[in-house]
Amino acid sequence: MSRREMVRPGGRSARVQALVHTAVRELEAEVGRDALTVPLIAKHAGVTPSTIYRRWGDLRELLSDVAVERLRPDTEPADTGDLSSDLTTWAEQFLDEMASPAGRAHVRDALLGDPDGSNAGQCSGYAAEQVAAILARATTRGERTPEVETVMDRVVAPMMYRILFRPAGLDAAYARRLVADLLGAPGPGQPTAG
Amino acid sequence: MSRREMVRPGGRSARVQALVHTAVRELEAEVGRDALTVPLIAKHAGVTPSTIYRRWGDLRELLSDVAVERLRPDTEPADTGDLSSDLTTWAEQFLDEMASPAGRAHVRDALLGDPDGSNAGQCSGYAAEQVAAILARATTRGERTPEVETVMDRVVAPMMYRILFRPAGLDAAYARRLVADLLGAPGPGQPTAG
Repeated sequence: MSRREMVRPGGRSARVQALVHTAVRELEAEVGRDALTVPLIAKHAGVTPSTIYRRWGDLRELLSDVAVERLRPDTEPADTGDLSSDLTTWAEQFLDEMASPAGRAHVRDALLGDPDGSNAGQCSGYAAEQVAAILARATTRGERTPEVETVMDRVVAPMMYRILFRPAGLDAAYARRLVADLLGAPGPGQPTAG
Repeated sequence: MSRREMVRPGGRSARVQALVHTAVRELEAEVGRDALTVPLIAKHAGVTPSTIYRRWGDLRELLSDVAVERLRPDTEPADTGDLSSDLTTWAEQFLDEMASPAGRAHVRDALLGDPDGSNAGQCSGYAAEQVAAILARATTRGERTPEVETVMDRVVAPMMYRILFRPAGLDAAYARRLVADLLGAPGPGQPTAG
């Protein structure tokens, strides 16, 4: 179940979610992710286990929601003056965060406890929003820009695919190359990955 | 743990694996995936539960190994006469299989019961092998070909990313567009996704 569906800001629902999410983050730091249980989280959050089961179904769905919350960007993409450097800077940061042990764990949790796919969609939506902000800024500068979905296919998808399936040789140079190949329109036979 | 590490062809290890994998597939058809338990699978396979726990650790790792086995291509990519149509045909089939309910379930199982990432790497390796076979055939025809890793980034990654994170509008036309954009070297602003 997605946060969008769950939260009524300011209401009890939002307060309970904040308490439970905080409990998960604190307990994860204290006892480690594998030691988390619904009763333990409920006790720490000061709610009943049934409140958690009613709302999240099970531990995995709760961890998935917490992971999505953590994957939400907390800042606008940096404005570095032009599309190429904005997108390169963002892609390097995105890869650095997502490929980190914590980032990988959150991506896996987001996918894992997500029966209807809405949490995975939300992760993707966060990236698309950041890309759209970078492209909108470039358009106002009068720069020629690709479509958001093209950037998702050419920059975001390869990084996320390799993080999950093909992690060898993932570094900032790879992120830079993806952006350069997109904006520079490479020909066939031109490698985008080492 | 990956099949590569596990199997000693013809040995007891290989026989046990075959029995257990078959039991999982048969029980999945009979009682459904969510009703599977290690004791049930062991009974059906004629092995002890401890044999399964010793070898696979837990149910999720076993299901991950079975999923990887199912994702292994059983045929060479079709030879349709040229690179563009070989790659297009393969990409359409790949997307059709991976985006099916069974395909999505196997991809998720392969990813999620895979502590060391070797099963996910094997799924990606299967796709890379098929792509490499298509490119090698094109090279012998004297066609100019992209690198395998370029095809992974430009064709395989976007399809797999969207299957997991962004499933709207995934169809054969999307797979065709990815291949056409790769081989045709699109310029910036040219959408590869609708």
